[in-house]
Amino acid sequence: MIDHFGFDENLTFQQRYLIADQHWKKDNGPILFYTGNEGDITWFCNNTGFMWDVAEELSAMLVFAEHRYYGESLPFGNESFSDSKHLNYLTSEQALADFAVLIEYLKENIVGARFSPVIAIGGSYGGMLAAWFRMKYPHVVVGALAASAPIWQFGNLVPCGTYFSIVTNDFKKSGKGCSESIRNSWSAINRLSSTDAGLQWLSSTFHLCSPLKNLRDAAMLKNWLSETWINLAMVDYPYKADFLQPLPAWPIQVVCKFLTDPSLLDKPLLQNVFQAVNVYYNYSGEASCFDMSQTATKNLGQMGWYYQVCTEMVMPMCTDGVNDMFEPQKWDFDALSKECFRLWGVRPRPSWVLSMYGGKNISSHSNIVFSNGGLDPWSAGGVTQNISDSLVAIVIPDGAHHLDLRSRNPCDPKSVQQARALEIHYMKQWIEKARHNH
Amino acid sequence: MIDHFGFDENLTFQQRYLIADQHWKKDNGPILFYTGNEGDITWFCNNTGFMWDVAEELSAMLVFAEHRYYGESLPFGNESFSDSKHLNYLTSEQALADFAVLIEYLKENIVGARFSPVIAIGGSYGGMLAAWFRMKYPHVVVGALAASAPIWQFGNLVPCGTYFSIVTNDFKKSGKGCSESIRNSWSAINRLSSTDAGLQWLSSTFHLCSPLKNLRDAAMLKNWLSETWINLAMVDYPYKADFLQPLPAWPIQVVCKFLTDPSLLDKPLLQNVFQAVNVYYNYSGEASCFDMSQTATKNLGQMGWYYQVCTEMVMPMCTDGVNDMFEPQKWDFDALSKECFRLWGVRPRPSWVLSMYGGKNISSHSNIVFSNGGLDPWSAGGVTQNISDSLVAIVIPDGAHHLDLRSRNPCDPKSVQQARALEIHYMKQWIEKARHNH
Repeated sequence: MIDHFGFDENLTFQQRYLIADQHWKKDNGPILFYTGNEGDITWFCNNTGFMWDVAEELSAMLVFAEHRYYGESLPFGNESFSDSKHLNYLTSEQALADFAVLIEYLKENIVGARFSPVIAIGGSYGGMLAAWFRMKYPHVVVGALAASAPIWQFGNLVPCGTYFSIVTNDFKKSGKGCSESIRNSWSAINRLSSTDAGLQWLSSTFHLCSPLKNLRDAAMLKNWLSETWINLAMVDYPYKADFLQPLPAWPIQVVCKFLTDPSLLDKPLLQNVFQAVNVYYNYSGEASCFDMSQTATKNLGQMGWYYQVCTEMVMPMCTDGVNDMFEPQKWDFDALSKECFRLWGVRPRPSWVLSMYGGKNISSHSNIVFSNGGLDPWSAGGVTQNISDSLVAIVIPDGAHHLDLRSRNPCDPKSVQQARALEIHYMKQWIEKARHNH
Repeated sequence: MIDHFGFDENLTFQQRYLIADQHWKKDNGPILFYTGNEGDITWFCNNTGFMWDVAEELSAMLVFAEHRYYGESLPFGNESFSDSKHLNYLTSEQALADFAVLIEYLKENIVGARFSPVIAIGGSYGGMLAAWFRMKYPHVVVGALAASAPIWQFGNLVPCGTYFSIVTNDFKKSGKGCSESIRNSWSAINRLSSTDAGLQWLSSTFHLCSPLKNLRDAAMLKNWLSETWINLAMVDYPYKADFLQPLPAWPIQVVCKFLTDPSLLDKPLLQNVFQAVNVYYNYSGEASCFDMSQTATKNLGQMGWYYQVCTEMVMPMCTDGVNDMFEPQKWDFDALSKECFRLWGVRPRPSWVLSMYGGKNISSHSNIVFSNGGLDPWSAGGVTQNISDSLVAIVIPDGAHHLDLRSRNPCDPKSVQQARALEIHYMKQWIEKARHNH
């Protein structure tokens, strides 16, 4: 159903989902249900090894459900993003309703699944969905593992700058002079971009596919660099991995090797910055030039996500250049709203997500594990302290963005191993209790 | 916001609400919030004396919120019912979102209300809304009193015929020969309506404003009578009252005085039936003729409710003429669907309300009191047994439709007095706990 919440349109669409049942106990064994987020579900499926690792131990079926408007689950095919009319059904509420209806369908149609307890699992926005799914549809899922889910990065529930200070700390502790080099790079770029020759130098030094022509382009360069540092903080994993980009183990340490001297003059400083971002964008050594419009894997649906940011998912962010290494920038809701109206003809409603999902006032819910990585900027908006016996926070000090959802790895720090053990403990408890109730 | 769940339309509308704060303790005293149902809120306000009776004891503010598309809360003014486009926002989900947003607004804008615990109270469909409100927005209301709320009258959660067998029992025990007289009346009408003279006789005997012309009109007569008996069962209160119609105390007993001999011939039997319905429609003695299109107060929004029945609120009903006194009629979803499409261009989705609100699987929720009257046909779909320590059922054997929500009355049976005492006990408990948490 394209519109679960209205009856004027009675259209349906095809939602993609993946199933793995080789370890499933057919007599109502549990189902681990991945609440798909803003991207291609096959990519999430391949980056959520934890579910594959525990399937046998739990005798569980795995289901990965794609989020509407991402991957191949496009309600109106190629027209899905054509205008605000077609985009009108891209909301978290509709996505949760899709998940609920899909699970009911599966339980009715898979022999032996009728009484299977279902656990929602997701990371990042998918982790928010997993938590919200348990809150809104506790009759459908017996519990949820919400990994790196910044459900409090809304309104003024948390300070808008913590996110960037976490990024900064990751760089600060990964190499001497590292965060200072980055902090100093912005004014170096500003000075150089004030002349045509400087813009030209920046374009060639950073191997940009389209050369910088003006201050607006220079601002894009700074944005692109900022996003790069942020993404590095998200994927600062303890082993070689390919999530947003193919990267070495502890990539920030590798990056910081190039950023040891913050006192350098503008050009040598920025040449080092280039070497640093080259780690992120060209670890494979195949890039001929850098396209500033793409900072991460194409498996993420940038357009859909930006529409969601322009409607429900309004997450205030700010920098001050003191507690973080970025150029100071206040949170500017009006600018966002204006841009959203220009792009999609919609206005964000920043308080709706709080009205809908309760903000910090969620203690009456149950059976949710919130896990967060200490290295992950998104932990700024996450639940990092227990709320009750059954709303549990797990912090993984050495973890980046939902490290716990990744496959087991010999380089895993002890903290993530313990986190996973605890997550499995809670999942078993929910399953056991469901079996008892049924 | 007319559409809480989509961003293409950014229109708002004026929602009516009534406030009474004369007993309110301004320092975060509790708020009793009536979740308005399918009618004019002033009428519900005047028929929910219980809230007025307890306001002082609880030092509570009373808020009565009108449901969108009823009373004066019309999203598109006179156009609201013009077509399925304008009706598209008439759903229980939108109504609950209205309530959530309204409560947040009140708590922000009324001095001293910021931390007021809010309790949802409603009856009938409004009782369903109260229960669902607590289930979906537990961060907004600390508990709910759901009076005569048939939240299980959906899908096949309960047998479709119980509703009518309860009506029948009410008549059976209110006078000898009463339910049998009604059971026999249908075939008497059928025999008479097979001739023009018989139709004429029926029209004049029943004082109909528009005379019956054919079998279709005769079917309407039977429908009108059925609805009358059902309504009588709903308002079989122990004292003179004016809810759906002005009526004497225990109106079914009064009605049954005319229906003591089921073995009469067709015409005398139906003359008695007329005397019986005359009690319901003409207790004031002012009606000159009877209009079959109106069986209850005009304060109810018939059109809006029928649209809701045609979309979300699909409640299977059936009769067999054996366990009940009605003509046998199977539940016919296809006929409903066809009629809905003809009228509004919409198709009902009978399973959606189950997916959304959990059907019988609601044990993970908390702080809801479900009260039901033993005389009330709607108790057939109600929660009449405790589900947990905090999902509590109260049955009032001598109670009709949400008798407990009415003002205290000297004729109140002991059972409703006890029910109200228990309801107040739970409300105090929720308030106390909220104060503690805050």
